[in-house]
Amino acid sequence: MAGHTLGGLASRFGLESRGDVATPIDGVCNLSPGKPGCLSFLSSPQYRKFLTETAAAAVIVRPRDAAALTGAGLIAKDPYLAYARIAALFDPDRNFEPGIHPSAVIDPAAKIGEGVLIGANVVVMARASIGAGSSIGAGCVIGEDTVIGEGARFVAQVHVGNRVCIGRRCHVQPGAVIGSRGFGNALGPSGWEEVPQLGSVVIGDDVEIGANTCIDRGALDDTLIANGVRLDNLIQIAHNCSIGEHTAIAACTGIAGSTRIGARCMIGGAVGISGHLEITDDVVILGRTMVTRSLTEKGAYGSDLPVAPAREWRKRTVRVRRLDQTERRLTSIEKTLGIESKKGNEGDDGGDD
Amino acid sequence: MAGHTLGGLASRFGLESRGDVATPIDGVCNLSPGKPGCLSFLSSPQYRKFLTETAAAAVIVRPRDAAALTGAGLIAKDPYLAYARIAALFDPDRNFEPGIHPSAVIDPAAKIGEGVLIGANVVVMARASIGAGSSIGAGCVIGEDTVIGEGARFVAQVHVGNRVCIGRRCHVQPGAVIGSRGFGNALGPSGWEEVPQLGSVVIGDDVEIGANTCIDRGALDDTLIANGVRLDNLIQIAHNCSIGEHTAIAACTGIAGSTRIGARCMIGGAVGISGHLEITDDVVILGRTMVTRSLTEKGAYGSDLPVAPAREWRKRTVRVRRLDQTERRLTSIEKTLGIESKKGNEGDDGGDD
Amino acid sequence: MAGHTLGGLASRFGLESRGDVATPIDGVCNLSPGKPGCLSFLSSPQYRKFLTETAAAAVIVRPRDAAALTGAGLIAKDPYLAYARIAALFDPDRNFEPGIHPSAVIDPAAKIGEGVLIGANVVVMARASIGAGSSIGAGCVIGEDTVIGEGARFVAQVHVGNRVCIGRRCHVQPGAVIGSRGFGNALGPSGWEEVPQLGSVVIGDDVEIGANTCIDRGALDDTLIANGVRLDNLIQIAHNCSIGEHTAIAACTGIAGSTRIGARCMIGGAVGISGHLEITDDVVILGRTMVTRSLTEKGAYGSDLPVAPAREWRKRTVRVRRLDQTERRLTSIEKTLGIESKKGNEGDDGGDD
Repeated sequence: MAGHTLGGLASRFGLESRGDVATPIDGVCNLSPGKPGCLSFLSSPQYRKFLTETAAAAVIVRPRDAAALTGAGLIAKDPYLAYARIAALFDPDRNFEPGIHPSAVIDPAAKIGEGVLIGANVVVMARASIGAGSSIGAGCVIGEDTVIGEGARFVAQVHVGNRVCIGRRCHVQPGAVIGSRGFGNALGPSGWEEVPQLGSVVIGDDVEIGANTCIDRGALDDTLIANGVRLDNLIQIAHNCSIGEHTAIAACTGIAGSTRIGARCMIGGAVGISGHLEITDDVVILGRTMVTRSLTEKGAYGSDLPVAPAREWRKRTVRVRRLDQTERRLTSIEKTLGIESKKGNEGDDGGDD
Repeated sequence: MAGHTLGGLASRFGLESRGDVATPIDGVCNLSPGKPGCLSFLSSPQYRKFLTETAAAAVIVRPRDAAALTGAGLIAKDPYLAYARIAALFDPDRNFEPGIHPSAVIDPAAKIGEGVLIGANVVVMARASIGAGSSIGAGCVIGEDTVIGEGARFVAQVHVGNRVCIGRRCHVQPGAVIGSRGFGNALGPSGWEEVPQLGSVVIGDDVEIGANTCIDRGALDDTLIANGVRLDNLIQIAHNCSIGEHTAIAACTGIAGSTRIGARCMIGGAVGISGHLEITDDVVILGRTMVTRSLTEKGAYGSDLPVAPAREWRKRTVRVRRLDQTERRLTSIEKTLGIESKKGNEGDDGGDD
Repeated sequence: MAGHTLGGLASRFGLESRGDVATPIDGVCNLSPGKPGCLSFLSSPQYRKFLTETAAAAVIVRPRDAAALTGAGLIAKDPYLAYARIAALFDPDRNFEPGIHPSAVIDPAAKIGEGVLIGANVVVMARASIGAGSSIGAGCVIGEDTVIGEGARFVAQVHVGNRVCIGRRCHVQPGAVIGSRGFGNALGPSGWEEVPQLGSVVIGDDVEIGANTCIDRGALDDTLIANGVRLDNLIQIAHNCSIGEHTAIAACTGIAGSTRIGARCMIGGAVGISGHLEITDDVVILGRTMVTRSLTEKGAYGSDLPVAPAREWRKRTVRVRRLDQTERRLTSIEKTLGIESKKGNEGDDGGDD
């Protein structure tokens, strides 16, 4: 973590530098107010004014902002991305000493790869396999016959059920549950009976799974999470869902069973998606949207009404509830005037369910 | 798991068979494409066409579909239910070897029934009691004086607080928290003060509780979950709620304090139910509904607006916000025409608070 | 827990008593039906009728209700608050025997204060510090360099990441995750790349954190939770949020990154608040509200439509979707009549987004 210089970073990350290449870089910081000895970045032009004021030792800027650099800096096509990569050098949680904590309970039939850290009180069950270079933090439970690829980072207290398959370099936050029972129940003569969930969960490479997020196992086929998917905290992925490559989902969103979501979608927080739907590639769903039909066209979607002062909100709900009356009043006026109205069932936000 | 035949399953589950009773059945599968050696089921007529194409060795069908069976099969009044019961034979997670893992921490004053599995790193506190034939998986914490009935299946990392009472054959997924503190706070002169939550949680028989679902303990009386209730993942049940028999609740739903929900209700995902309400028996609440009043009539209920393309969604919210103006325009026209409108405060979706 | 009398409680809590000061008080109870030997309270006048019927040994009442007391009682300006404080005497979970369970894994470089309870299978990592008089329950994981103040109560299975700072007397329910990675990702040429989250979480004194609630660490600066904040279960607090003193947030609410919430706010359940907003002090947000703009005026806010029978709900959504048509019909009538309408884009619940 020590000993970085502006010039060293420039050559390591293939960037052009401005100013003294010997400038020591000891960390990263925000642009305003900035921190001496640290590297910052400018991604949005609205913060350009901070370039002259920042206490940062150097700033990563776009080529078009290079002229505005008054001090040292790095030039990058995408300063935020360059920042992200450089900042990883200063992340104290990225490095770990391999080793197996004596309190860990590892089944003799489990396979632990080279250079793996197994933390305190971890449980690795029979025939599970942990890929080389992985870090499985304190209190994780890894089920029977589960395979975890190389370079995994499971922070702590993660649950992975039996027979789950997880790719390489997946990063899982505490409390995540992967491979819980799908919510399948059949109504019998004296109440609900469990429908066994015999499928599993298959997760690709470079997937991030947030804290306390749940991914249920499939009923017969598997629940699928493709390469590069990003899941925030407290998300529910029900049985037999499929999430396409590089789709990102924000916190508190729930997706019901058997829904298929395409690649590169951006799904906001607290969205609810019904079961058995198809969401095509490159769909953007705004926060708190209720999705009850398939979305076959790429583009952005929303549904929720925005906040209002409570007094106005109450009036608004009353007005929405008497829309039938409002429409009848209109019809009555049209009759009086002999106007024929062009009525239909579809509004111009048409097509919903 | 091995050695099943069609005829053996027919007699074991009291079903009529078609075709060769010696047909070996090694597992279960979907109808399409189906899997050789496996048993599938046909519950919806829309999939009847797959009967001739399926690779399955046999299919469970309704009596009315028996004639359409081209291969072997079983006849059941409810094929999905028959499938659920037969599939349990092929569930590798149903069986376990009883025994207490040496890493488990069991208070000398706890009682462990016969044939119980206590997994690695489980903690069972003073005077807790685990019923015969239960499986308490790795990392569970069972509080003091808590009673868990026979045949429990706690997958892993479940938390059960002190003095909780859980019936027989309950199935609890990882990360569930049963008996956390109710959210009771009183405003004192220098901020919130805790109102002790001295009640507990009482759970009936055959209850399923999903991953990371939370059930708070009562303030004075207990939070009650009746027999046969099914709770999906990431559900919040606040203090002093009562959930009636065989009610099923989908993921991400939250129920505020002291609300009483009847029997056999079906509550969708991401529903929010306010506190101190009564929901009668046999109510169906659609996903993402906001329930702010008691529901005293059985039937289905909804509230949320469905998804629309963002451009239309934005127009829609503008139009809803100017409904006051729309109504004023109407009134002004009516005045011009000398029409008296039948106005009221209630629309025809009436009755909501 | 034994040996309390009405007179003893009166003098201990500075309250006036009515009736026999020697009345033994063995617990607390609801007013109706009440429990012999127990103390109850009357806070709402609507329950005054129960004063004569209750089986409680004594009741805490407001001065104005003192005349209505037919039996023994205590007089308090705020009976609920007085009840809360007295009830703590009868809370069996408040007391613990200090000591370190032999199964706990405590790094030699960690500091454990005096009178601390460390439960079974707890993990305390390098250089973490646990304040005097704290109780860290079974299965908690406390990260490196994390500081927890005096008198903490961490029930069980809590996760606290590295370098987190938590004040005094914080009460944390099972499954809470404090200091998980913020959801920061930058789009690179072959998919999402992680933006390191190098900030931490700083939590004040007397904060309550509910079961399975998640608080992410900041990207560069810290996520801040001020003194006296109350967080219910299953809440998401994203990176770099700041929550002001004594703000209370109900279950299932999610707050996106960098949003600043003022002091003494009351935020209902399942609220969704977008990122980079400012919510001023003393704001009340009703349950299930979607907040997509800053709220700069104190007061109450709402947004969601309330429940309706499904048949009416479907009609309502159709009518909302054809509001464009409704408005066009109005305009056409106005034209016919030669009325000029006062149209605008803003309704009277104005100002939203």
